[in-house]
Amino acid sequence: MKPGNKRGFASDNNAGVHPKILEAVVQANQGHVVAYGDDPHTESATRKFKEIFGEDTEVFFVYNGTGANVLSIQALTDSFQAVICAETAHINEDECGAPEKFTGCKLLPISTGNGKITVDQIGLHLHALGNEHHAQPRVISLTQATELGTVYRPQETEEITRFAHQNGLFVHLDGARIANAAVSLKTGLREITRDVGIDVLSFGGTKNGIMFGEAVVFFNRALARDFKFIRKQGAQLASKMRFIAVQFEALLTDDLWRRNAQLANNMAALLEREVRSIPHLTITQPVDANAVFAAIPPRHIQPLTQEYFFYVWDEEQSIVRWMTSFDTTQEDIMGFVALLRRVLA
Amino acid sequence: MKPGNKRGFASDNNAGVHPKILEAVVQANQGHVVAYGDDPHTESATRKFKEIFGEDTEVFFVYNGTGANVLSIQALTDSFQAVICAETAHINEDECGAPEKFTGCKLLPISTGNGKITVDQIGLHLHALGNEHHAQPRVISLTQATELGTVYRPQETEEITRFAHQNGLFVHLDGARIANAAVSLKTGLREITRDVGIDVLSFGGTKNGIMFGEAVVFFNRALARDFKFIRKQGAQLASKMRFIAVQFEALLTDDLWRRNAQLANNMAALLEREVRSIPHLTITQPVDANAVFAAIPPRHIQPLTQEYFFYVWDEEQSIVRWMTSFDTTQEDIMGFVALLRRVLA
Amino acid sequence: MKPGNKRGFASDNNAGVHPKILEAVVQANQGHVVAYGDDPHTESATRKFKEIFGEDTEVFFVYNGTGANVLSIQALTDSFQAVICAETAHINEDECGAPEKFTGCKLLPISTGNGKITVDQIGLHLHALGNEHHAQPRVISLTQATELGTVYRPQETEEITRFAHQNGLFVHLDGARIANAAVSLKTGLREITRDVGIDVLSFGGTKNGIMFGEAVVFFNRALARDFKFIRKQGAQLASKMRFIAVQFEALLTDDLWRRNAQLANNMAALLEREVRSIPHLTITQPVDANAVFAAIPPRHIQPLTQEYFFYVWDEEQSIVRWMTSFDTTQEDIMGFVALLRRVLA
Amino acid sequence: MKPGNKRGFASDNNAGVHPKILEAVVQANQGHVVAYGDDPHTESATRKFKEIFGEDTEVFFVYNGTGANVLSIQALTDSFQAVICAETAHINEDECGAPEKFTGCKLLPISTGNGKITVDQIGLHLHALGNEHHAQPRVISLTQATELGTVYRPQETEEITRFAHQNGLFVHLDGARIANAAVSLKTGLREITRDVGIDVLSFGGTKNGIMFGEAVVFFNRALARDFKFIRKQGAQLASKMRFIAVQFEALLTDDLWRRNAQLANNMAALLEREVRSIPHLTITQPVDANAVFAAIPPRHIQPLTQEYFFYVWDEEQSIVRWMTSFDTTQEDIMGFVALLRRVLA
Repeated sequence: MKPGNKRGFASDNNAGVHPKILEAVVQANQGHVVAYGDDPHTESATRKFKEIFGEDTEVFFVYNGTGANVLSIQALTDSFQAVICAETAHINEDECGAPEKFTGCKLLPISTGNGKITVDQIGLHLHALGNEHHAQPRVISLTQATELGTVYRPQETEEITRFAHQNGLFVHLDGARIANAAVSLKTGLREITRDVGIDVLSFGGTKNGIMFGEAVVFFNRALARDFKFIRKQGAQLASKMRFIAVQFEALLTDDLWRRNAQLANNMAALLEREVRSIPHLTITQPVDANAVFAAIPPRHIQPLTQEYFFYVWDEEQSIVRWMTSFDTTQEDIMGFVALLRRVLA
Repeated sequence: MKPGNKRGFASDNNAGVHPKILEAVVQANQGHVVAYGDDPHTESATRKFKEIFGEDTEVFFVYNGTGANVLSIQALTDSFQAVICAETAHINEDECGAPEKFTGCKLLPISTGNGKITVDQIGLHLHALGNEHHAQPRVISLTQATELGTVYRPQETEEITRFAHQNGLFVHLDGARIANAAVSLKTGLREITRDVGIDVLSFGGTKNGIMFGEAVVFFNRALARDFKFIRKQGAQLASKMRFIAVQFEALLTDDLWRRNAQLANNMAALLEREVRSIPHLTITQPVDANAVFAAIPPRHIQPLTQEYFFYVWDEEQSIVRWMTSFDTTQEDIMGFVALLRRVLA
Repeated sequence: MKPGNKRGFASDNNAGVHPKILEAVVQANQGHVVAYGDDPHTESATRKFKEIFGEDTEVFFVYNGTGANVLSIQALTDSFQAVICAETAHINEDECGAPEKFTGCKLLPISTGNGKITVDQIGLHLHALGNEHHAQPRVISLTQATELGTVYRPQETEEITRFAHQNGLFVHLDGARIANAAVSLKTGLREITRDVGIDVLSFGGTKNGIMFGEAVVFFNRALARDFKFIRKQGAQLASKMRFIAVQFEALLTDDLWRRNAQLANNMAALLEREVRSIPHLTITQPVDANAVFAAIPPRHIQPLTQEYFFYVWDEEQSIVRWMTSFDTTQEDIMGFVALLRRVLA
Repeated sequence: MKPGNKRGFASDNNAGVHPKILEAVVQANQGHVVAYGDDPHTESATRKFKEIFGEDTEVFFVYNGTGANVLSIQALTDSFQAVICAETAHINEDECGAPEKFTGCKLLPISTGNGKITVDQIGLHLHALGNEHHAQPRVISLTQATELGTVYRPQETEEITRFAHQNGLFVHLDGARIANAAVSLKTGLREITRDVGIDVLSFGGTKNGIMFGEAVVFFNRALARDFKFIRKQGAQLASKMRFIAVQFEALLTDDLWRRNAQLANNMAALLEREVRSIPHLTITQPVDANAVFAAIPPRHIQPLTQEYFFYVWDEEQSIVRWMTSFDTTQEDIMGFVALLRRVLA
């Protein structure tokens, strides 16, 4: 590791690429293949997805999570419709208005304590269905694991998807950290997506050891009909597609996705365990996945970030966020804990 | 080279990654760096651009050429404005309407014989400046080298940029193959862009040996003011930015960009030389860069594509396009020429 | 008539409101009715449309022709699709890029001599159906009468609509001057729209004696499904809808639409007849409806516009356009002809 | 009044046109004038606005309130920016997502009890200025009188505009009922708009006796620079503009705007006074302008709407809204009050 590249707890996308994935990229660099996805690597990666999610799954690789989210939603909506999501959802808070720009739709954010929305809250937005003066709810977008590090139980997801489908709505899942959720729930990937009624999934790779690339996975083929045009017009069609495809192929081989996520989750759990006893520090969210949220006195933040980089999540309440990643080590955690003990003492 | 990965002449983006560039990617995979471009690799790559194009240049990395083009144009326009370009321009023909979708602007295509537009043709579109019933021309978008493998001479570009600026228009350059143009003109990169009045450049990497990534280069800082927001909202901000940045750093080190482009251009020149004498084959465009356009009888096309993949450019006139790339070899050319001789005999 | 309000030949929308229509507006100003179209006037005007075009017609009133055109097209398209039209089409030339802004679609303009496009020309744009790199043609938009004062014969329209439907395209008709076309063809309104395969019609009122308002008429109910939302989001839903509705009711009562258009067409025919013998003046288009296009020497234009306001259509070729309207009188024509004789002598 | 046109309390846009305004429309129907606003009526109406708001005011007539609001905001923003407004704002609740569609911007709604937002609430949305991951607040949009019938005091407005300008934001005012606010505050129109720092005003006419038409009024000329293009591309440029212009001329002559609004406000005040003593009825908002909000038991609503049409504002809390208009009479109020007494007894 070069100086200045010290592992911190800022984000799982501050990490680099898992060696197995990088190796796959290097291996794929042989001769010419047809551009834009009509190549054997893309075919083979697509096959992996179908093995996991079912034969009639449609998979499209794109560049990044924002691309996956906004194009998914575009595929499900017309501009006069609306998207219901948590106020803390990445699409609402962290994409600079990309969903509105790409789709023309209104977002209907729901205030939550823990990043998870409920059927009751969703229901409040359905009072004006059919009334042309109001943007018409069409999509519910969930995040799994949520931006607050919590995880929807399968029955929670299913309750929402059932309600959605009864009311003519689709459910999109922002799965930037879907692997962390599956590990947390001790399930496979299908059990918490397709099997509980999700219609379209943004399948995340970058936060789980990939260099670049996400996958849009449709569990309803009719919804995927126009997606190749949407992706191209959305500037998310990679010419040298093979280099995204082989990364996903590697991630889905020998459960690498699970091992990476397991490691990150374990490290978050370790961090939580170790800091629980530290005075002046309160864990503010259940640590379901690979994020630890903690309230600490403002004056202690700067001494900490000098040694380990991380973000303040909520300045007013002085809540910080610590993310672990596939390459976080026990030493990283124990070093950070030691510093926390010193500073907060 | 694996079977099925045979080098053909379909496109310079069917090639893989130059070994030096791949090596740089592998080297960059060390530890954590801040995501989204606030890292030393991005700083260093940006420095390279400034050395070439001038200190007051602003550089932004994006994922691909369509992204570079449409976001550049968005930075220069309001939705009620129009973009003048060649009918054959990538933005007009090959981006599935992305410019219209991202910017709301009308494209005003100009019919050309050789992919290059002229001041006289541009002038015909300026008859209604200030008239609110007509979309207002604001940007002229040129491609260099053009989609037809031709190259604007510096004085041709300058005539257009001077005319543009006199009329309150900006000039965008789609430089997907800017390196091939510089090699063709025996100049540096700055002499055919900034020095001849270009305002914003889509600097191409993928067609010249990069895995993924293009750069948007502003020569007018005021125009770059909002670009970081435009890039993020346009879903073109890479989280693990270092892996784009190091590729450009490698490409701009020791003139690798030039060597790659020189090789591709040389191979196209060789191909042209060899096929000129073949009967029933007519070269239809000057071979300025790395493309050879040829008219051949329709019945001969299929026997050729069985062995070397390439595209039919114009079915009605039976014109085919052969692209060379940084990894095309003399053997590739001579093998293809031998086949051509056999088939067209 | 107040001084300064002299009738000229600039445009049929420089005229005022037909007295019968104004009277209907005045009569409708009684008490309260529900806003936004849920009122008896709107019901009654809708009935008139159904009597003419068939019971299963869907009618929506909007504010103006641009609104009718762009929202019609929005109802038929997704953003990655394209609209084929004449280069001279109002949607292409005179709406400041509104179609691109509202729909995100690319317009594919066809160069014509007389404003009318043909199946052969349309066919040239269908070469890349299904190819995601190209905006996908979805709508053919015709204008009737055209912007050049010509009229599609029913069999011409039908040939286009048949070709369109065979290729999975819809046909929109910009009927800003549909009444003038029907009069010219000595048919009813249905025979040249629904009966020859048109899918959606922008039914013009303003150029035929109405104060404000156009109607979007769907002959395919499925296409109208979301239009009420599209209209509202497009800012084209009038709150005091009754005042648009009663104007259309009056226009469609006792064939007022026909009488107005007949008068305008007659006056154009008279003008053409009278000027044919004037030296240095060439009629450049068939006078099918209420427009006369003539080439006259540039130096004569200013003396003419001093007395009668009209527009130069093509400065390079010195072609002017003279429009007649429902209120043009024989005296207007003869006065203008006398002036023409004097000036061009 | 025809049967079925009984005056109710549903909305001030269920009313018709004030006789003086209708008379102006009839008077304007003389001969030809140049279309699209280059006519003496538009000039004269514009003059009236300048007399009221200052010589350097720029005025543009559009069709309706949604058009005025969304195009105003478009003139002030880029797509990556955001608009702060009350949750109950018309732009947020009642325009079917038109602001998002026209501008691409995110709306940042603020929950309020009375429709009025405060500097403290606005401040909470400014935490990420300059951070490209978040849509950048650019406009604060206020409504005056608010959708809840309340009115910002001049010092309240000024506090917001001062804060906005200090933070690089503009303030838009949705003045659909600006006349009612001025009457309520016993001021002129300028004192509660330009003089307290508003940048752009949607000046409402339709809810105060006009047939159709609103005015966009810029107090900062630089912001108006491109508005003529924005209006045209937004499908809000009326061809027979004179018929909008003369209505505003009439409305601004002899203080007709004030008399109409005064009457409506007086009737709301009368209604409030009369119903205060009725049991099982609670007034829920201050009656500052021409709206009365009241909580009444759900079972009483249907018997009331059978005789007088009005809307339920909040089903859960069983709150109804009664709007008065320029043509509401004392008899209307007393008749309704008598019914209320009977039903709620």
